[in-house]
Amino acid sequence: MSPTFPAPLSGAKQDETDVFRPRFDAAGLVSAIVVDARSGEVLMLAHMNSDALEKTLSTGIAHYWSRSRGQLWMKGETSGNTQEVVAIDTDCDQDAIILHVRMQGDARACHTNRRSCFYRRIMPSSDGWRLVSKD
Amino acid sequence: MSPTFPAPLSGAKQDETDVFRPRFDAAGLVSAIVVDARSGEVLMLAHMNSDALEKTLSTGIAHYWSRSRGQLWMKGETSGNTQEVVAIDTDCDQDAIILHVRMQGDARACHTNRRSCFYRRIMPSSDGWRLVSKD
Repeated sequence: MSPTFPAPLSGAKQDETDVFRPRFDAAGLVSAIVVDARSGEVLMLAHMNSDALEKTLSTGIAHYWSRSRGQLWMKGETSGNTQEVVAIDTDCDQDAIILHVRMQGDARACHTNRRSCFYRRIMPSSDGWRLVSKD
Repeated sequence: MSPTFPAPLSGAKQDETDVFRPRFDAAGLVSAIVVDARSGEVLMLAHMNSDALEKTLSTGIAHYWSRSRGQLWMKGETSGNTQEVVAIDTDCDQDAIILHVRMQGDARACHTNRRSCFYRRIMPSSDGWRLVSKD
């Protein structure tokens, strides 16, 4: 996908290699699970193209690809809620990563001004599946 | 996408509704972050189409859509490492969920027989980004 990263390998070789070989999907993206480095809480899920991944690795500040806006995006650029990346893990086939971050600013990862995007729990009800606030 | 779930709303309405309105992507999928209900550790990232989501909600056992095999998949069907779902959270725009699970069988979520798919950390080296085992 990009000259920045080596190409993924096939099958088990990709699972066991000691070289980072991100496997971008058909849209050129990997998934990034963002976790609070202190508490371990999952804060958000975002996506990265090769540029966003390269910028995140080289600067230590989380950058993503906005699928809705179609542009590279430094998280917190306007809100001040930037994410300092402490560590990054990859999964077996390298199409998903975990970013362990220290939130800056007001420590609100969600655009709704909440700490985490995952603020609602799915619960059964008599007329289907409802959402209940966890806060 | 499916008669099983009501359609997503636009903008902030989707963020604040108390009705579960999953937003499937162009491929008909939502992302599922799978977390160990006891430890909070992220175990894997998978994808669900409407059928997989409906089966997971109705049975309490995690089902996914395998993008590589193009089929519905009950996690652990052959290995015994099924996932009992304790709770599910959704994110703001409802295109991603967190499954809090109790692992059954040998408690190995990864097809490589590891507990988590995220067993390697990305580290800088003189010749690019390397992967170091966390185990």
